[in-house]
Amino acid sequence: MMAERRKKLGRGVAIVGAGMSNFGTRPDMTTRELFAEAFVEMLNSVDKGINPKDIEALIVGNTGAEFWESQTSVAVICADATGLNPAAALKTEDACASSSVAVRQAMMGVASGMYDVILAGGTERMSSLPGDWTTMAIAGGSDTTYESSVGFTFPGLYAALARAHMETYGTTHADLLNIAIKNHSNGALNPKAHFPSSIKDVMDMRKNQAIKKGKPVPNWNDEMEFLNDQKYNPIIAWPNTLFDCCPVTDGAAAILIVAEDIAKDFTDTPIYIVGSGQASDRALHDRETLTSLPSARMAARQAYEMAGVTPKDIKIAEVHDCFTIAEALAVADLGFFEEGLEAARAAAEGKTSRDGRIPVNVSGGLKCKGHPVGATGAAQIVEIFEQMRGKAGDRQVKNMDIDLALTHNIGAHGTTAVVQIYERR
Amino acid sequence: MMAERRKKLGRGVAIVGAGMSNFGTRPDMTTRELFAEAFVEMLNSVDKGINPKDIEALIVGNTGAEFWESQTSVAVICADATGLNPAAALKTEDACASSSVAVRQAMMGVASGMYDVILAGGTERMSSLPGDWTTMAIAGGSDTTYESSVGFTFPGLYAALARAHMETYGTTHADLLNIAIKNHSNGALNPKAHFPSSIKDVMDMRKNQAIKKGKPVPNWNDEMEFLNDQKYNPIIAWPNTLFDCCPVTDGAAAILIVAEDIAKDFTDTPIYIVGSGQASDRALHDRETLTSLPSARMAARQAYEMAGVTPKDIKIAEVHDCFTIAEALAVADLGFFEEGLEAARAAAEGKTSRDGRIPVNVSGGLKCKGHPVGATGAAQIVEIFEQMRGKAGDRQVKNMDIDLALTHNIGAHGTTAVVQIYERR
Repeated sequence: MMAERRKKLGRGVAIVGAGMSNFGTRPDMTTRELFAEAFVEMLNSVDKGINPKDIEALIVGNTGAEFWESQTSVAVICADATGLNPAAALKTEDACASSSVAVRQAMMGVASGMYDVILAGGTERMSSLPGDWTTMAIAGGSDTTYESSVGFTFPGLYAALARAHMETYGTTHADLLNIAIKNHSNGALNPKAHFPSSIKDVMDMRKNQAIKKGKPVPNWNDEMEFLNDQKYNPIIAWPNTLFDCCPVTDGAAAILIVAEDIAKDFTDTPIYIVGSGQASDRALHDRETLTSLPSARMAARQAYEMAGVTPKDIKIAEVHDCFTIAEALAVADLGFFEEGLEAARAAAEGKTSRDGRIPVNVSGGLKCKGHPVGATGAAQIVEIFEQMRGKAGDRQVKNMDIDLALTHNIGAHGTTAVVQIYERR
Repeated sequence: MMAERRKKLGRGVAIVGAGMSNFGTRPDMTTRELFAEAFVEMLNSVDKGINPKDIEALIVGNTGAEFWESQTSVAVICADATGLNPAAALKTEDACASSSVAVRQAMMGVASGMYDVILAGGTERMSSLPGDWTTMAIAGGSDTTYESSVGFTFPGLYAALARAHMETYGTTHADLLNIAIKNHSNGALNPKAHFPSSIKDVMDMRKNQAIKKGKPVPNWNDEMEFLNDQKYNPIIAWPNTLFDCCPVTDGAAAILIVAEDIAKDFTDTPIYIVGSGQASDRALHDRETLTSLPSARMAARQAYEMAGVTPKDIKIAEVHDCFTIAEALAVADLGFFEEGLEAARAAAEGKTSRDGRIPVNVSGGLKCKGHPVGATGAAQIVEIFEQMRGKAGDRQVKNMDIDLALTHNIGAHGTTAVVQIYERR
């Protein structure tokens, strides 16, 4: 076997624009309309402007327009909606990592010399089907021969990972719920989030609903008491309760990727992609461990090596928290914390909060910002782009020079992982 | 607007292995099993051998496993079936051009410096659904808002293109049927073809069936008389009769793509990718012409410019003949013949036959070899790889030094086009 070679790009690649649609349940919007909304936001983010005619190619991450709209060829449909024809248009799919993959492919497209300016992003209209159909469509991201066909859906697959963590390390459900509390506290500051509400906001809403209906008003002492009230936070697949799970979200995101040598034509503060890794894995029954995602560890190692940095150098990270356990795994797989209780309790102990040692998911994460699966990876990059340029509004991380940041995006239950590292020079 | 820049790769890219599964109706085979069959054929084609552990990434074209198997994440499923985990695995989708796109992305992955060895290909298991479901699933490649939702399916969309050609140029149905006759005559020599039969073979089969059943034996004087017999060649969507249409095929193909500087480690006769182009287009109602595919013209121009060659330099071509009219459009869009009757009658006049001026679809084409949509582009390259290396068996093109060849792969009804040029040095 060849020695694993340090990945190195033929030329540098920069992000000079990034935008996302509002996230939420948006029954009035089709897949292409969501993408067009993100596209316009991206255009508005380019400091020195961009003529759309200069965009040479379009790579769109999307997971299930086949299910939601009976539509394949999503990328050319998005090219039509954004007026980008005859630019080359293609779709990438790797379940929930589809748009990180799109960005990675765009990076290689520019680094290869084939293109100077590429639009990459993702779009997903998920709320068009009845709930149980949606659950089954999403389950298509698992191994349908070994997993979904025998009854596994994603809350169950991640519940298996959570149970393994609890058994191995003594992790508690409260540890996991603290991840949700933190991410809702971040998302409450994000006007584009699916749920721009802290858990306290949710509690107030529930109380007001009870008052309006003339019913007994619940009297929880704190968030944890509310989250342990099964009437308001029912079990989905133990230990995943409703508030351990991300929502089903409609949304899109778009990223403008250009060659390093022309980046300053678009902005004085480009964000450079300096590290990128991707790896795959098998179905859950075929793995050697359930307390980490080996694909994420390999992708992280590749990204760190390519960037020539270590986990300690990363200032903030957006990680894949489709379920609370996923963030507990992520912060260990990325080397921020030790696998086990240290990682699982990082949120509870404030280490990953906005003013913590390493702020994680300051956008609100998938849990609160929302998880339009094919758009999620690109939307993580939108947050990183805004934070690194000091333009994240109320949720801007303060007292920190964010010169290096990271995104961690998982496909399915770790059958794909993409980790990327960004630099502001 | 920036001037259109001549595309140039950061480093050269070569194909050193190529294999395909048997094409046909294969109800016993899943999407991943088809891909594994092609993978083994690819392994066997590498002259000096390849250790699968040296394959760093896997890009799989696939159009509709969501429909056929409720499966997303197809690439990681194929990585599992071929033992390629933890290699990075991703799916590309652009309707029927999905695997040409996969190969193109692999080319950029290698040219970018990120990878040295990538497996690209495609797989499609299409025959698992009832016929009308299949027709609707395929129609998902059109614009579902403007086309399939108002009743258009692909035989109809291409019929519209054929009718426009007839009205504009006086093209006859016989001109189109001669394309089918030529491609079946080629495919009869291809043991992996869905229909390894000439039209004469089909006529004999029909006669024998009549004899066995004790029915009157039809007495056609030639192929054209048979093809005009609506009992045996019914109209699907005029002027597309059954024999104007490609079949619904299960199949897969796999291509091994490496950096130029290590190509000779795998074979003494690598095939270099020297030109590549891709463009997109809008739905049919939104085009300025119906007698050519503008996306194909642009992709061809890009590929020729990148390779620094002209249509006259190309020795053989595999082109996208999902319907007979598609080949008539292709040979004009590629600049081999003039748009109109010259292009439409090239097959009838023997100019594109195995011993013609430029042999087109010596594999049998989509029409006869079969069209497993996500695998078709890669399968075209398998044919080119074998022909350029003189290993195409009975259908090897003779008396010609095939130093330059071309593939032309269309997504949907020209909403995507990929044209690539290959060189043997």
